[in-house]
Amino acid sequence: MSDKLFDIAVIGAGPAGLSAALTARVRNKSVALFEHMDFSPKLQKAHAINNYPGLPMTAGKDLMKQMADHCLSTGPTLIKEKVTNVYSGDTFTLLTPNDTYEAKTLILAIGMSNSTMLAGEKELVGKGVSYCATCDGMLYRDKPVAVIAYTEEGEHEADFLGEICPVVYFIPQYKTEYKPKQPTVQVMKARPQAVLGADEVTGLQTDAGELKVEGIFILRQSDPAETLLPELEMDGPFVKVSREQATNVPGLFAAGDCTGKPWQIARATGEGLVAALNAIGFIDSKK
Amino acid sequence: MSDKLFDIAVIGAGPAGLSAALTARVRNKSVALFEHMDFSPKLQKAHAINNYPGLPMTAGKDLMKQMADHCLSTGPTLIKEKVTNVYSGDTFTLLTPNDTYEAKTLILAIGMSNSTMLAGEKELVGKGVSYCATCDGMLYRDKPVAVIAYTEEGEHEADFLGEICPVVYFIPQYKTEYKPKQPTVQVMKARPQAVLGADEVTGLQTDAGELKVEGIFILRQSDPAETLLPELEMDGPFVKVSREQATNVPGLFAAGDCTGKPWQIARATGEGLVAALNAIGFIDSKK
Repeated sequence: MSDKLFDIAVIGAGPAGLSAALTARVRNKSVALFEHMDFSPKLQKAHAINNYPGLPMTAGKDLMKQMADHCLSTGPTLIKEKVTNVYSGDTFTLLTPNDTYEAKTLILAIGMSNSTMLAGEKELVGKGVSYCATCDGMLYRDKPVAVIAYTEEGEHEADFLGEICPVVYFIPQYKTEYKPKQPTVQVMKARPQAVLGADEVTGLQTDAGELKVEGIFILRQSDPAETLLPELEMDGPFVKVSREQATNVPGLFAAGDCTGKPWQIARATGEGLVAALNAIGFIDSKK
Repeated sequence: MSDKLFDIAVIGAGPAGLSAALTARVRNKSVALFEHMDFSPKLQKAHAINNYPGLPMTAGKDLMKQMADHCLSTGPTLIKEKVTNVYSGDTFTLLTPNDTYEAKTLILAIGMSNSTMLAGEKELVGKGVSYCATCDGMLYRDKPVAVIAYTEEGEHEADFLGEICPVVYFIPQYKTEYKPKQPTVQVMKARPQAVLGADEVTGLQTDAGELKVEGIFILRQSDPAETLLPELEMDGPFVKVSREQATNVPGLFAAGDCTGKPWQIARATGEGLVAALNAIGFIDSKK
């Protein structure tokens, strides 16, 4: 466990997260910035953006680099790990596959998940549904499992699970030519529909039939916010926030695409800034 | 009267107004952008700004120029006149000293007034209180008047009023070496305190005594929003808006410093963008 208590943890380093981290650093707060993938793959693919004021007709890749360089020059601690769980108490505890971090406040800037939660998923998180094989895999040793993957990250998870589980159904939701390293991994073409089970997972319903599994690993590019923190109040698929970017959890703020539409850069950077200043206000109010 | 009906009128061309006009133009809407002074004099004075993502350590003057050039390159109609009154109906009617304009929607991006309204001011707007001598001066011909000026603009107004009024008390609230062109204009050092009168203005209370006047002209850098549109719902000194930047008046949106703190550039540009997209949504919903 990292022995440092950060003032502000920011999860996600797209425009909203980078703006939040930047303003927090300019205001001299310690910042842990979690980005387990490349900075906003979605924005990087944008051909040209023409409505971010001051930077006309900029390729998404260039804009993202300018923003990332700018933010990182102010010295946040960049942590290239995926946060899989958050516990809120006097401080926030963030779990990654490798470590544990503590922060006084937390800003979610996790973007918009490209998939909604499955039926039954929320109810069975921790009871067979997991978002991290590296963290939870050992709990499923010798049991049949499924991996629903929206990104290549899922392939590494499947290879690992293949070493310890008798059967691993790998169900990619993206284009891939993945060749499993273990004979126990079966690649399936299917759409997942529902997590089955009452108190614990007993199966996965797909459009290609039902799979008898005891564990289901779901690897999305960005997890729906409520998978991180079940007590977080949502408004449909979005994190519910006030004009101060505050959520229902004291000290927890959210900014950018995860809080709703329009999904636009200037909106995201503005919300990141507001979230950072209100997180600082929250810290100051507790002194 | 201009015979054109604009899709969107934007009042104010600081970061919020420029961002709103930019996004509206990128979305191919016709835009009237009202800016009677230089683009955001407040921002232009900022020595260096380091928390506008993507443009590290930029002088306020340079940042403002980059934003203005970017926005104007997309072709909004820039109107260098001060909007003194707005009427809302099927469309919005905007009055300036010289002309009248019509727009389907309106975005207020007027920044934060550097002075609050005087006691009695709101109640007596149009009954002796005016924000434009060029517009209303003739109504006060042969009557004693006062000019409370927060910018040099007030000096021209006082010179004009001095030609038609027997006495003009000029009360500057800024540093000036103004020499009146008319002997009827008296420069006074005083702080205005209250507009006096029940149904119409009868005087002005100042810390240097009471002045018997029938007209009071108040020239601020930026007028409090409610002087433009009395039905606008406020939250203290700020325009009350939803997360969609909507006000209580249908089709009327507000963005940037006039909607509250923090007074920061990225927040302003984000709100301007959101206001523009929701104004476009409002237009589309009426088709």
